[in-house]
Amino acid sequence: MATENDVRTIWKMADAVCFDVDSTVIQEEAIDELAKFCGKGEQVKKMTQEAMNGNMDFRESFRRRLEIIRPQMSQIRDFIKTKPPRLTPGIKKLVEALHQRSVPVYLISGGLMGIITPVALELNIPLQNIYANRLKFYFNGEFAGFDESEPTSRNGGKGEVIKMLKTKYGYSSVVLIGDGATDLEASPPAEAFIGYGGNVIREEVKSRSKWFITDFQELINAL
Amino acid sequence: MATENDVRTIWKMADAVCFDVDSTVIQEEAIDELAKFCGKGEQVKKMTQEAMNGNMDFRESFRRRLEIIRPQMSQIRDFIKTKPPRLTPGIKKLVEALHQRSVPVYLISGGLMGIITPVALELNIPLQNIYANRLKFYFNGEFAGFDESEPTSRNGGKGEVIKMLKTKYGYSSVVLIGDGATDLEASPPAEAFIGYGGNVIREEVKSRSKWFITDFQELINAL
Ligand SMILES: [Mg+2]
Ligand SMILES: [Mg+2]
Repeated sequence: MATENDVRTIWKMADAVCFDVDSTVIQEEAIDELAKFCGKGEQVKKMTQEAMNGNMDFRESFRRRLEIIRPQMSQIRDFIKTKPPRLTPGIKKLVEALHQRSVPVYLISGGLMGIITPVALELNIPLQNIYANRLKFYFNGEFAGFDESEPTSRNGGKGEVIKMLKTKYGYSSVVLIGDGATDLEASPPAEAFIGYGGNVIREEVKSRSKWFITDFQELINAL
Repeated sequence: MATENDVRTIWKMADAVCFDVDSTVIQEEAIDELAKFCGKGEQVKKMTQEAMNGNMDFRESFRRRLEIIRPQMSQIRDFIKTKPPRLTPGIKKLVEALHQRSVPVYLISGGLMGIITPVALELNIPLQNIYANRLKFYFNGEFAGFDESEPTSRNGGKGEVIKMLKTKYGYSSVVLIGDGATDLEASPPAEAFIGYGGNVIREEVKSRSKWFITDFQELINAL
């Protein structure tokens, strides 16, 4: 059984690092913020609660939340402009440190590509290193659903992405950092998981993480 | 068997008039023009020919043509701006005459909603009276397919729309005007079909139309 020291060893020699986005790279849950922005905050919160209680699968809960919000393209544009996602303190320095060591960084998220794109740009992460859900819109900007073939829209999708990256690039030490249960469950295939509790602490994740941090500086120090 | 006179009688008392769009309300086939605009004119022409020879169904041929063009949202915007669809001479006066008589006018097309919308605006046709195919795009404007649930994307779709309009509004005399075989085949359920050959004459349609015209003025005169 792996110990914190094993995880620290893998961290030092990682050949790719994957980050969850919501409540990890950024301080909030972007879909909840978008829902509030569109005046649907309470309804979406209620739906999320119901989904959790009823063990609804991710795609179904994702679909229902989007059906409540039905964001117009222009609303997402306005949202990004007026409520840009706030980077978690220390993340920029951490990504820089990884890039300086030529370690590729990926963002793997059950959130929205359109909202994560500016986050990636700010962190100098190539856009093709983002794995997230893609909304669809009609020509008039109306909401038209989402790309249901995207692995990140289903349960176990983060693990699928990591497996694919390992096959495609031959990585043998992939580290995943995140705050949620879906992140924890993606290791394996990720060789190591580091729990992050700087924005929100989820007890189950904390107790099951071999290495749990609340400040990205700890990761820079341990490189 | 109906004669031209029967069709003329139905025309005078029609409680709704439906128009095909490409080569009827406008002078060209908008998708072919869009393909040319996107530098894919020849490829799409070849595909259309193959589809015709192989009896490919409409949705499959539509899907393949779109997969060749893969129009970006911005390309469609530029296309509409720089190559706006040209109204067929006389159509504006004809639609006005129908509206003056309080006859509702519909546009039913296997073409693209986004391109037909400005045509409807120019003709004072309410946008909810357009039945056409809706493209989908990702947030970055990339092509993301089309609404496959739209009846106009399948064989027999125009007839389905007319049947639905009759049920919804209780119309008992619907006239459909168009240049193509899919228009001809939508009557019935349309009570009458009028072939239009002012832009292009398709021999099969001409020979099977009880009433075939090449100038919309004939329809105004016969009201
Ligand atoms: Mg998260
Ligand atoms: Mg036509």
